[in-house]
Amino acid sequence: MDDRAHGELDAAQLTGLNDMDPEAFRAAAHAVVDRIADYLAGVESYPVLPPIEPGSIGSLFPEHAPEHPEPLAAILADVDRLILPNATHWQHPGFFAYFATTASGPGILGEFITAALGQNPMLWRTSPIGTELETVVVRWLREALGLPDAFAGLLTDTASTSTLIALAAAREAAGLDAAAKGLAGGGLAGEPRVYASAEAHSSVEKACMTLGLGRAALVKVEINERYEMDPAALERAIAADRASGRRPIAIVATIGTTSSTSVDPVATIADIAARAGLWLHVDAAYAGVVALLPDHWRPFAGWQRADSIVVNPHKWLFTPLDASLLLSRRMDQVRAAFSLVPEYLRTLDRASPVLDYTEYQPQLGRRMRALKLWMQLRWFGLDGLRRRIAFHLDQAADFARWVDEDSDWERLAPAPFSTVCFRYRPAALVGREDEPEVRARLDDLNTRLMDAVNRTGEVFLSHTRLGDRFTIRMAIGNLRTEARHVERAWALLRREAARLDA
Amino acid sequence: MDDRAHGELDAAQLTGLNDMDPEAFRAAAHAVVDRIADYLAGVESYPVLPPIEPGSIGSLFPEHAPEHPEPLAAILADVDRLILPNATHWQHPGFFAYFATTASGPGILGEFITAALGQNPMLWRTSPIGTELETVVVRWLREALGLPDAFAGLLTDTASTSTLIALAAAREAAGLDAAAKGLAGGGLAGEPRVYASAEAHSSVEKACMTLGLGRAALVKVEINERYEMDPAALERAIAADRASGRRPIAIVATIGTTSSTSVDPVATIADIAARAGLWLHVDAAYAGVVALLPDHWRPFAGWQRADSIVVNPHKWLFTPLDASLLLSRRMDQVRAAFSLVPEYLRTLDRASPVLDYTEYQPQLGRRMRALKLWMQLRWFGLDGLRRRIAFHLDQAADFARWVDEDSDWERLAPAPFSTVCFRYRPAALVGREDEPEVRARLDDLNTRLMDAVNRTGEVFLSHTRLGDRFTIRMAIGNLRTEARHVERAWALLRREAARLDA
Repeated sequence: MDDRAHGELDAAQLTGLNDMDPEAFRAAAHAVVDRIADYLAGVESYPVLPPIEPGSIGSLFPEHAPEHPEPLAAILADVDRLILPNATHWQHPGFFAYFATTASGPGILGEFITAALGQNPMLWRTSPIGTELETVVVRWLREALGLPDAFAGLLTDTASTSTLIALAAAREAAGLDAAAKGLAGGGLAGEPRVYASAEAHSSVEKACMTLGLGRAALVKVEINERYEMDPAALERAIAADRASGRRPIAIVATIGTTSSTSVDPVATIADIAARAGLWLHVDAAYAGVVALLPDHWRPFAGWQRADSIVVNPHKWLFTPLDASLLLSRRMDQVRAAFSLVPEYLRTLDRASPVLDYTEYQPQLGRRMRALKLWMQLRWFGLDGLRRRIAFHLDQAADFARWVDEDSDWERLAPAPFSTVCFRYRPAALVGREDEPEVRARLDDLNTRLMDAVNRTGEVFLSHTRLGDRFTIRMAIGNLRTEARHVERAWALLRREAARLDA
Repeated sequence: MDDRAHGELDAAQLTGLNDMDPEAFRAAAHAVVDRIADYLAGVESYPVLPPIEPGSIGSLFPEHAPEHPEPLAAILADVDRLILPNATHWQHPGFFAYFATTASGPGILGEFITAALGQNPMLWRTSPIGTELETVVVRWLREALGLPDAFAGLLTDTASTSTLIALAAAREAAGLDAAAKGLAGGGLAGEPRVYASAEAHSSVEKACMTLGLGRAALVKVEINERYEMDPAALERAIAADRASGRRPIAIVATIGTTSSTSVDPVATIADIAARAGLWLHVDAAYAGVVALLPDHWRPFAGWQRADSIVVNPHKWLFTPLDASLLLSRRMDQVRAAFSLVPEYLRTLDRASPVLDYTEYQPQLGRRMRALKLWMQLRWFGLDGLRRRIAFHLDQAADFARWVDEDSDWERLAPAPFSTVCFRYRPAALVGREDEPEVRARLDDLNTRLMDAVNRTGEVFLSHTRLGDRFTIRMAIGNLRTEARHVERAWALLRREAARLDA
């Protein structure tokens, strides 16, 4: 790039030694702060989804890495020019797709400090504060979620990893001795089986792939008309597998599935797990934070009986990526699945046993995720977090009501949390929804509707299929979303539906 | 905590809605910048290892999460009071333990911007810039490392994950169909086997545990007196396993082992892998960046024939945790191991195939790791990175020479990179090293010596065992380390050795 003239190189760049001087860092970081604050103040001015095509960005960058240092001012100018216009703006209050991940102000500051400290709490010794603060924050969250102190846990990167860890522990708890002997030894009493509803998150299936259980190990249990796991079908599946010599090891129940945020009947499933002697993992990655609200305990009835639970602070607790909370009452099994301490990691000068988090996860190294959570929990307070989650629940209830009250629209699933599943279904078509032609027309109409709404740049909604119907999801959970954004989404949907249907 | 009076709550804290106001964020972030710049400027004033005992920190924090918001000033005061004094200072120029992970100034700024943007490049659509910039940065690094364009890749969190991905791909490439059918199906032609030297990193064994291959699947191949894999032993092991019905799937060769930074004979091993039809994974997590220096190609001879390679920017490329580069010439097999696209993640409005990185890793979500690397590569330039790595190589050569030239010290392994393995061995004991009593005394002496040196707080060195001898490792690679710090480490070692031996 020919903008090397844009600004001056600092001393360390000229000498080719050492890091950026702390005073140069100070000046540069102040400039970055203003850029970030401007971005956050003006994020609504960006289209949520950038109006670009795949492959259009890579060519804006040089073919080869730069040989010589460039001034920071030139790099920051390119952040404005190349990065911001080509981002999907997860921070935009009109982000209603998937499940929101907002990076809150105190969370961003927590990440900034985390990056500067460079902690690696793999061992107590490599980060005493990272290790012990993680234990504190995990306890704070566990207690705030209303779970008993039999649960301990750790912070991982994503729910995928948390669920993988849980199922690896289940593999050990079932006596497969997989960590030591592997699954291919032939000594196993039957092929392992994991049970989850047909609506469970893909991370369960992916964990089965990674762990060597295979996609074949996952039994997708039937759901009812509310997209909840049918416990009778679960029991039948377990019995049938046992009868044919397979080896059930775990059940995954979901509180807040990704498609429709349905809630599996956890208490009943816990009974089944107990009777069958199976590990129960509860995936509450999205909805788990609702357990912070005492009035909303109902979806969580029975989850305290799980062997492991995942709740993602980086979803609806406004924590910057990445932070997933894995809780388990059987941390010994988690350790059995992942503990391995080579000589070069042994801590020699401590008499007492030390908690080294690396023994509880597939990776050796790990980021300090506790600091940002600690800062956030203090800045918001539990009360502040509850208020914001309650606000999103209220907004979703409003949106669901608007859909229900408009005869041209149809809700396609219950909305127990902050996500509403719906579609445009002109009143004229009521009663004809199951005719193949109408079915196809509604799918097409709603596909184009979602696309049209997203192209406005004001909002971003995503879809799923429920009962084999194209379903638009309105997922509320961005920290910056206000009532006016939800209202605007509804107005845009109605406007674009009217246009398409004209 | 009773310091709620310490400063004032901002508007969003009082209303319990929305995020920190952007202007409040601006002010807070400027305050954080000054704190971080002060920390980096004064990091040498901290003891590298905090002089505290396990369990001493947790009790400094409240038992329960705060119910009500606290002013940011109070939180930042506690960063000074509770966080900094209890950290192991990876940023300290006297950090010579394990392998260094420095967070460079431009890297820290990259993480700060990354946190603020909240990108999740799991799909192209969820972060076009995160996706395409990752492709750019991976290409830049691949080319700078001298590897052919048959290699593509991605950024993962750690070398553990990169190696796990590589071995999962190897599992598919070997035709085990593990992702689909699992390993316990019984249809396998023999138990799988993975080969790595006895000095290979624990992450290889951990990947075997996670992947359901089991620790039993890992064959630890004999090493020579330089701690390098013996290729003849490798060939014998493969042949013996095949003869007894086992199923070899992959070989892991290491360029820069963790204990002694030894280099397996990759070219010879590549021949063996080709003859045996096995996947070759090269673990160059620490030393790989030395391939940026054209004069130092020798340890890398043959690595371009690998199926996959891991190199960690978050080690010796000064990138803040976490960033591991996985390269592979068989990305189709990586995809076969991890691809799974549920309806709610389908991108509908694109005709052309899109690169979605989530299909190449065990997790669904992922952080944008490309931005910090892009900023760093431009700020340092390849030339600047080479100079700094070369400086560390020179410093290590100096240190190795000091050890070699002092008759009271003994080097315990070659030092092909920036890590020197040595021990104190008083000249009077020369020739008696193998007597059991002397052996025990030297182990004890060096254990206490390392402890004494670390307790000075000026440096932090870690240990390993080589040839069953307690071995001190001097691992140079911190971006802020200058010649004076290496000299100081040597002076402290000699001073404390003299004291202990007195």
